[in-house]
Order: sequence, then structure tokens, then C-alpha cells
Amino acid sequence: MDRIPILQLGRFLLVTIQVDLQDQTALTLQEDLASRIERTGARGVLIDISALEIVDSFIGRMLASISGIARVLDATTVVVGMQPAVAITLVELGLSLPGVRTALNMEHGMKLLENALAEELDQ
Amino acid sequence: MDRIPILQLGRFLLVTIQVDLQDQTALTLQEDLASRIERTGARGVLIDISALEIVDSFIGRMLASISGIARVLDATTVVVGMQPAVAITLVELGLSLPGVRTALNMEHGMKLLENALAEELDQ
Repeated sequence: MDRIPILQLGRFLLVTIQVDLQDQTALTLQEDLASRIERTGARGVLIDISALEIVDSFIGRMLASISGIARVLDATTVVVGMQPAVAITLVELGLSLPGVRTALNMEHGMKLLENALAEELDQ
Repeated sequence: MDRIPILQLGRFLLVTIQVDLQDQTALTLQEDLASRIERTGARGVLIDISALEIVDSFIGRMLASISGIARVLDATTVVVGMQPAVAITLVELGLSLPGVRTALNMEHGMKLLENALAEELDQ
């Protein structure tokens, strides 16, 4: 079971990361997400990391990379559900997750994505 | 990491099962879900099993049991994302998931839950 499932929720895709990510799983996830965005025309990606007790620089880079891939495919990425201890460790380690938007939980993340979409339509 | 995260989506809760369920993980999930339904007043539970390549009688019983617990707490459970091979195996094994509602994917599952809620309000 080395494939992380991607769920579709209207115009958004949802990924819940529960397992320790190995290099291959992370690469597969990036490829799966990219082709899924292309196929569905999804405009947002929510990544739930509430099950992760550790976010190291590998995961940080992976999140930034997914976010970058989604951006060039015209989708916004929001990372949700970060545990308080994870946030503390990230800052202590000097990892600031550049280019990655975050929200407290899934509902806030969805609102953020919806607002981002609405703003785009206004322009 | 032996706790399966539960996400909230409006009036519904979402659980994505990605790991092989052990007895303790399954029990913890039941307890977490029950207390989450009680705390949030959620009216529906979506369980995504698209990552599972095998659904045996243990998982079948667990899904039925979650569904039963949710029902007495006034929430409807829908299992979504079953792989075709899993469906075939289930029927071959004579497991019919009694008392468990299913839907093809998350979007269909959400619609099913919304329709069930709307019907209740009509009555």
C-alpha cells in the first residue's frame, strides 16, 4: 500500500497523509496529483497532515514541491491540520515552508480556497 | 502513528483508511468517531477505502460496527471508493457488508448523505 489516495470534492482535491512518506511514495503522490489536476481541472488541493507527528525537511520540500507543481497547473495548495508540536518544531528547525499556504483545519482550508477562487473570478 | 485522522466537512465527517487496520487501531477509530459525532453533532460519516486492496471479514465487521455506532448517534455512514477487485472478492467470500451503505466515490457519497438529510427534514 504505497499509494496515497486522492479524493475529489467538487473543484478541489483532498489528500490525507497518514503514513511516513518514503521517497517513492512522495514521488508517486506528486505524479498522481499532477495527472489528477490535469484530468479533473481541479482548482485547489488540500493536504491534511493532522496524522503527522513529525514534519522534517524532506516532507517540507515535498509539500513545497507539490504546491509548486499545482501552481503551474493553475491550482492552489493549502496544507491543513498541522499539530501544534509540529509547528513549534518547524520553526525551531528554521523550516518556514516557503510557498506553502496553511490553514488550521480542513474547513478553514476549504474557505481559503473558495475565497481565492472567488477573487480570481472577480478580476 | 496508530490513529486514523477524522476530518470535518460541514455536517459530515470523513475518514480515509490507508493503513492495514489492526484491532487496536480499529477500536481507537470507533471511539474517536463516536466522540467526534457526539461533540460536533455530525449527521453523516464518509469512510473512504479506495486505498485498501483487501477487505476481509475483520474490516467488514469493523465497517458494520462503525455504521451501527453512528446510527444510534443519529448519523448515516457511507463507505466510498471500493476498488472493483475488492467488490468481487467480497461477493466471492459471501461478505455482503450488511447494514453498510456504499457509494462509488466521495462525491456520490456526499450526495447520498445530503439526500438522506433532506428527506429527513421533509418528514
